[in-house]
Amino acid sequence: MKQDRVTAVYLVETAYSLERAAASIAGEQSTGTFTAVPGETDDLKQRHGARVESIEALEETDTPSLPGAKTPPGHDGKYRRGRVTVSFPLHNFGPSIPNLMSAVAGNLYELQELSGLRLLDLELPDAFASRYTGPKFGIEGTRKLTGVYDRPILGTIVKPSIGLTTGELSDLVGKLARAGMDFIKDDELNANPPYAPLADKVEAVMAAVERAADATGKKLMYAFNITGDYDELRRNHDLVVKAGGTCVMVSILSIGLSGLAYLNQFSEVPIHGHRNQWGMLTRSPLLGIEFTAYQKLCRLAGADHLHVNGLNSKFYESNESVVRSIAACSAPLFGGYKAMPVVSSAQWAGTAPATYAATGTVDVMHLAGGGMLAHPDGPAAGFESMKLGWEAAVQGIPLDIYAAQHPSLQKAIEKYGKG
Amino acid sequence: MKQDRVTAVYLVETAYSLERAAASIAGEQSTGTFTAVPGETDDLKQRHGARVESIEALEETDTPSLPGAKTPPGHDGKYRRGRVTVSFPLHNFGPSIPNLMSAVAGNLYELQELSGLRLLDLELPDAFASRYTGPKFGIEGTRKLTGVYDRPILGTIVKPSIGLTTGELSDLVGKLARAGMDFIKDDELNANPPYAPLADKVEAVMAAVERAADATGKKLMYAFNITGDYDELRRNHDLVVKAGGTCVMVSILSIGLSGLAYLNQFSEVPIHGHRNQWGMLTRSPLLGIEFTAYQKLCRLAGADHLHVNGLNSKFYESNESVVRSIAACSAPLFGGYKAMPVVSSAQWAGTAPATYAATGTVDVMHLAGGGMLAHPDGPAAGFESMKLGWEAAVQGIPLDIYAAQHPSLQKAIEKYGKG
Repeated sequence: MKQDRVTAVYLVETAYSLERAAASIAGEQSTGTFTAVPGETDDLKQRHGARVESIEALEETDTPSLPGAKTPPGHDGKYRRGRVTVSFPLHNFGPSIPNLMSAVAGNLYELQELSGLRLLDLELPDAFASRYTGPKFGIEGTRKLTGVYDRPILGTIVKPSIGLTTGELSDLVGKLARAGMDFIKDDELNANPPYAPLADKVEAVMAAVERAADATGKKLMYAFNITGDYDELRRNHDLVVKAGGTCVMVSILSIGLSGLAYLNQFSEVPIHGHRNQWGMLTRSPLLGIEFTAYQKLCRLAGADHLHVNGLNSKFYESNESVVRSIAACSAPLFGGYKAMPVVSSAQWAGTAPATYAATGTVDVMHLAGGGMLAHPDGPAAGFESMKLGWEAAVQGIPLDIYAAQHPSLQKAIEKYGKG
Repeated sequence: MKQDRVTAVYLVETAYSLERAAASIAGEQSTGTFTAVPGETDDLKQRHGARVESIEALEETDTPSLPGAKTPPGHDGKYRRGRVTVSFPLHNFGPSIPNLMSAVAGNLYELQELSGLRLLDLELPDAFASRYTGPKFGIEGTRKLTGVYDRPILGTIVKPSIGLTTGELSDLVGKLARAGMDFIKDDELNANPPYAPLADKVEAVMAAVERAADATGKKLMYAFNITGDYDELRRNHDLVVKAGGTCVMVSILSIGLSGLAYLNQFSEVPIHGHRNQWGMLTRSPLLGIEFTAYQKLCRLAGADHLHVNGLNSKFYESNESVVRSIAACSAPLFGGYKAMPVVSSAQWAGTAPATYAATGTVDVMHLAGGGMLAHPDGPAAGFESMKLGWEAAVQGIPLDIYAAQHPSLQKAIEKYGKG
């Protein structure tokens, strides 16, 4: 690990040679302009230039992935793909996430020399860890606050996502808390709407959570969606903490990595990082950012929990990609900075075995909305079926065999297992 | 204009019927989940559901634009494209840009029912204007501060972008200010680097600007790149204002729309909005956001100047798209909120006639880096050649005819006109 440079790995597609494309990337993002200017000395280039570290050729294709790409005279019709590693002197921008992004992403996606560009990975020197303290709670802190060990933290998303009154919501939460649920989150569509202001919601929900805790001895973790503008982040966070809440949720792309880092400066409870809008940055295979790179920035900025979709979800993402994301979030960064991956979307008890088989870990949050709340025998049975699904998975017992002794699991299979 | 709903226009591609895709969008982003849940009453759907307002069928294609799209049983192999307009009840999220984004973008880009989705336009009710005050300076305020009327504000970008010492930079700025230049901006790669801290830069550059103003009677506008984390935005802004600076620049995608709105709460000088990283959100034609929609959010959040690339630039963007962006930035929003479009990238005197012919306006900032600084007779001649280029354009005189009487323009054509 170079302590004085940032290393970025790109997937590149170009009608030119990979060498030329790599040089364009390095030039555009450091000392270059389209024509030589006075003052651009060799010494300056040496001290501040980005450097092409390696180029690995991959496949060729006949069609450019993105529009507006230039071709060289006498172009052979081929677009070359490759993995290109470029390093940037840290002193060009210092350990600043906002300015790092201008350097490693910046105008690169618009270059005519490229018909495809995707940021695959980032290696950041320790100076970033001195500036950004990362998750304060992470996996361990979240387990401690919920009192749940040796299995995934199981929870649900408030459904319907929109429209419940504060009274309806707190009744629902009270019921789910008494059913023994570990965790509930607001929907990302539901933050501080005029029809059910966050202040009222926090007060009513936390009263229901505390009453249930008095009865059951277990305090449910509720992630209040505090997404909002800068001034609201602090105000909303303080509302939650003052009422005894143990988690705040934000839409990371709505508040930006800077907003997340700001929240992390004063947050007293885990930050549940929702990644809605992320599809925009990643669904085109030759554009944007791979989650492997992005999750590092989210963790650096302080996300304790990070959404990663789920296996066999309602989204476009492949299971392989979801599994990669789960592994990425809990791989050490600066020797720690672990975030808890949040598995969700079309989940139910039956998605536990596949998730465990593919990841080999129980250090995840596993969330089911309809897959728990719409269980034929109600949410408590839904929650139980999820626990049973994971028990079966970890013990290596086929789900239908385990279900024969466990009616709640059996009914979950009957309801959700036909899809 | 509906005052109680937000309207979003999407370009959609789907293997299903456009009707079904539109219903998925409306359902996912309001009351839906993958299975019916208790409490999702008709009354709740009525009050909080998103509504499909119109569907306009466009062309069909044989290949899906994005990966991971599902097809219906018996799929005919066609992917249908259409313009789909969906409206959302404002009371689902209130006039909040961060929560608006979770609603109009959110998880939509990941839906399997869609093989393409692009947010084309947004119509926002006046409640947003009450919450976000928009540009404080805009076109008029910027003209007043620079004293430049009836022609574009002409300026340059510091080049080399990286590596000049504070002394070298202030010498350069002093020289350019004495040459009569209207405007200079930092490069987006250069904010507050360890080798030339912003505090030193601001002090040295503003001293040079003031000395030049004493000599020439005209004060150059310098846009200091203050991009950074939240606490730095205020500190950096205050540094600039205290030193007599008249503009701050931010990379909007680095600080997020929330960061921009935060800065706009206390800014005392125009905010120069750089859009690096934007390519990620827009270069794939069936993904992301069209600038027509995004620029509205930038203006709402307070951008006084907005980068739009330039005609015949080094970037992939078509001239038509650049022209659309220029028109969009200065079209009224809430009856005002105009931002000054910033035309840049591979610009020189010769790009003025095409820009004027296509846009019919002089209300732009026209920036040239190498195209001014590398002029054979130096930057003052470069600046003069740009002014002459616009004079010729507005008067409808062909550039080479005008150049016959103006050596600085003639030399610019000789240097840059061969490309």
